[in-house]
Amino acid sequence: MTTELTNVANGGLLDRRLFLKRGLLFSTATALSPQLLANELEQPEWMQKPGEPFSNYGQPSPHERNTIRWTMENSMANGNGVSWTPLQDLQGIVTPSGLHFERHHNGVPQINPKQHKLLIHGLVNQDLIFSIDDLLRYPMQSLFYFIECGGNSNAGWRSQPIQSQVGYFHGMTSCSEWSGVPLRFLLDEAGIKKTASWVIAEGADASKMNISIPLEKIVDDCLLALYQNGERIRPENGYPLRLIVPGWEGVLNVKWLRRLHLTNKPTMSRNETSKYTELLPSGKAEQFTFVMEAKSLITNPSQGQKLNDKGLYQISGLAWSGRGKIRQVEVSADGGKTWKEAELQTPVLSKCFTRFRIPWQWTGQEAIIQSRAIDETGYVQPSRQKLIAEKGQHGYFHYNAIVSWKISADGSIQHVYV
Amino acid sequence: MTTELTNVANGGLLDRRLFLKRGLLFSTATALSPQLLANELEQPEWMQKPGEPFSNYGQPSPHERNTIRWTMENSMANGNGVSWTPLQDLQGIVTPSGLHFERHHNGVPQINPKQHKLLIHGLVNQDLIFSIDDLLRYPMQSLFYFIECGGNSNAGWRSQPIQSQVGYFHGMTSCSEWSGVPLRFLLDEAGIKKTASWVIAEGADASKMNISIPLEKIVDDCLLALYQNGERIRPENGYPLRLIVPGWEGVLNVKWLRRLHLTNKPTMSRNETSKYTELLPSGKAEQFTFVMEAKSLITNPSQGQKLNDKGLYQISGLAWSGRGKIRQVEVSADGGKTWKEAELQTPVLSKCFTRFRIPWQWTGQEAIIQSRAIDETGYVQPSRQKLIAEKGQHGYFHYNAIVSWKISADGSIQHVYV
Repeated sequence: MTTELTNVANGGLLDRRLFLKRGLLFSTATALSPQLLANELEQPEWMQKPGEPFSNYGQPSPHERNTIRWTMENSMANGNGVSWTPLQDLQGIVTPSGLHFERHHNGVPQINPKQHKLLIHGLVNQDLIFSIDDLLRYPMQSLFYFIECGGNSNAGWRSQPIQSQVGYFHGMTSCSEWSGVPLRFLLDEAGIKKTASWVIAEGADASKMNISIPLEKIVDDCLLALYQNGERIRPENGYPLRLIVPGWEGVLNVKWLRRLHLTNKPTMSRNETSKYTELLPSGKAEQFTFVMEAKSLITNPSQGQKLNDKGLYQISGLAWSGRGKIRQVEVSADGGKTWKEAELQTPVLSKCFTRFRIPWQWTGQEAIIQSRAIDETGYVQPSRQKLIAEKGQHGYFHYNAIVSWKISADGSIQHVYV
Repeated sequence: MTTELTNVANGGLLDRRLFLKRGLLFSTATALSPQLLANELEQPEWMQKPGEPFSNYGQPSPHERNTIRWTMENSMANGNGVSWTPLQDLQGIVTPSGLHFERHHNGVPQINPKQHKLLIHGLVNQDLIFSIDDLLRYPMQSLFYFIECGGNSNAGWRSQPIQSQVGYFHGMTSCSEWSGVPLRFLLDEAGIKKTASWVIAEGADASKMNISIPLEKIVDDCLLALYQNGERIRPENGYPLRLIVPGWEGVLNVKWLRRLHLTNKPTMSRNETSKYTELLPSGKAEQFTFVMEAKSLITNPSQGQKLNDKGLYQISGLAWSGRGKIRQVEVSADGGKTWKEAELQTPVLSKCFTRFRIPWQWTGQEAIIQSRAIDETGYVQPSRQKLIAEKGQHGYFHYNAIVSWKISADGSIQHVYV
């Protein structure tokens, strides 16, 4: 029995529930004659000798050595730069901690957790200081959250489409299970004064990274994370303490957190004045644009990959929204003329990566594939034209337009604007 | 405003929703005078110099070098042994891949993925062989599943309670997001013959690890995993291919999978006759006891840890069931006389670790803390007495009794049988 493939949208998109059916033919496997079978039953060299010993802490296979964070440091300022998560090489929703993107201003401080302290002061009834051992005694919560740099995908603002793999274009976002102490417990102990409305968070790196965050958000859902993906946070992700500000710009998720200063106004630091503000076509600039709006992109197939044959494929990608859950992801295979709903990997979690997938029959002809996320507030990821009409051509932060990959007849894949 | 603490069960257990309230006092922080505050605002040495450079693949802090898998190899048989996940040092539900437990029979084969193949043969219409590149084109699913060795926690069968940390006692279980191809797609392409009822799975290690699995389970929900926690599977977890058999004994989740042989009966291999069978008091032995029944344990506080002060704590632990979701976890702080429902970390997923937490006020007196899992089928984790009454005193596999930690007046914690 072979299941018939019926297009549900132009360009070969198939029903998202197709893969629940039986009897699909992918025909990528090799059929074996008895002679070939006998050959295959012979044992490879690694079955002829004992394997490698046990290890206290495992590492990826040497054959995966190309699955890395690409790094880009500012040659004028040591330790100032970024490294990208190779989203095109990953599956599921968890980013392995070793591949979580980095954005540092003066390198990764090597902190001794016995000496690190968190200070809460300013508009509180009692200034308090917490050691890591103190904090480990507090009640914890664990939540899966994405973190995305406000400047992620900024190559999208360029007049010509950048030809880079997904990770090198959109890889300043990653998703982890963060475990730690809800900040309201600590602020309640210090006692919040009625005049307090902002919190200045400061990290213990050499750049003294600091930034202002509304107190309301801190009390609502911010987490003092001690663990990432089950184990203590890695140094480059803020060991031993990171502030998690769910769904908001990455820069607010201060690493190596040492100080929360409660105030009655923002501090107007470098990171909220010269950076992380957006100049609009009107000449005015937007400031405190905290929320990362809904976004999605197809990770497979994507720029730099190649389709070798016509036939059945699974289009797969990631969607996320700083406002809550992803409600729906639609995929187009005809450059945006028709759209079809993709399957969402469950559980769909709030302010977390959501993996989407949809079956697709490639006919071998040119095709443009795109994805469009809609979040639970009803916000729809904009087209590039719409985003530019609203924000102008000279943006740098908050690029979240629909991403388009053109598959050529030879199977090669390019980034295009449509 | 300070919230009043009202016991909801003996021994100081508090309502699980207590931590949703405001105004709790943990009183572990240090209050600061202005002079002390000024001292604390001075900068530690790591803020005085640039930090470490970016890295292509991150590693844990050197200060966490004790958070490792403990390994135990058979001195008579190189590469035969286990390593344990340090559950007492972890939070949330994800086990970092580097700390996923290991059970090898002849070490970790160093497989070249370009040469590795998966063979499907036997009672099929057409023998098929798949390269890794072939498999990467198939539709994927991602699911969070625990894997637990059938012999996990077997020290519980000893007549005296073992004094080991949680990981060294119960750490042959771990939980990951596994991504891969549902096996039914591949079997459908090969074409299952009506006479087929079992599948022999074989790994590509030097021990040629093989075992029989009912075909019905393989078609139902088994996954051919290529990815673990987002990235390609680590060598010691089966790179490049691992069979995932959700909720069933770890030994069935064959690593380095190279062959699925469809047959009309089990093969009666070493791993299903001399091992992984259980001798009952009646003299009969149980075989093919695949499902890992519901189980839970408190990871914090636990054996080997120490409480330094009286006061408010959060009891935290893990529960899981091979039959589906955890419905409820109850905690006792008086050696099993009274029980109170703990909070379950959401999302609660099927055949996956579930983190439970409950607030607890330690009075400084001796206490025995325990947890008891109930899964969605209504199965209740048994007491040690009940398990031994059913299975006898000489068990080795499938130990899932309630675990008891005794807190002494000095705050030290021991494993006890009650």
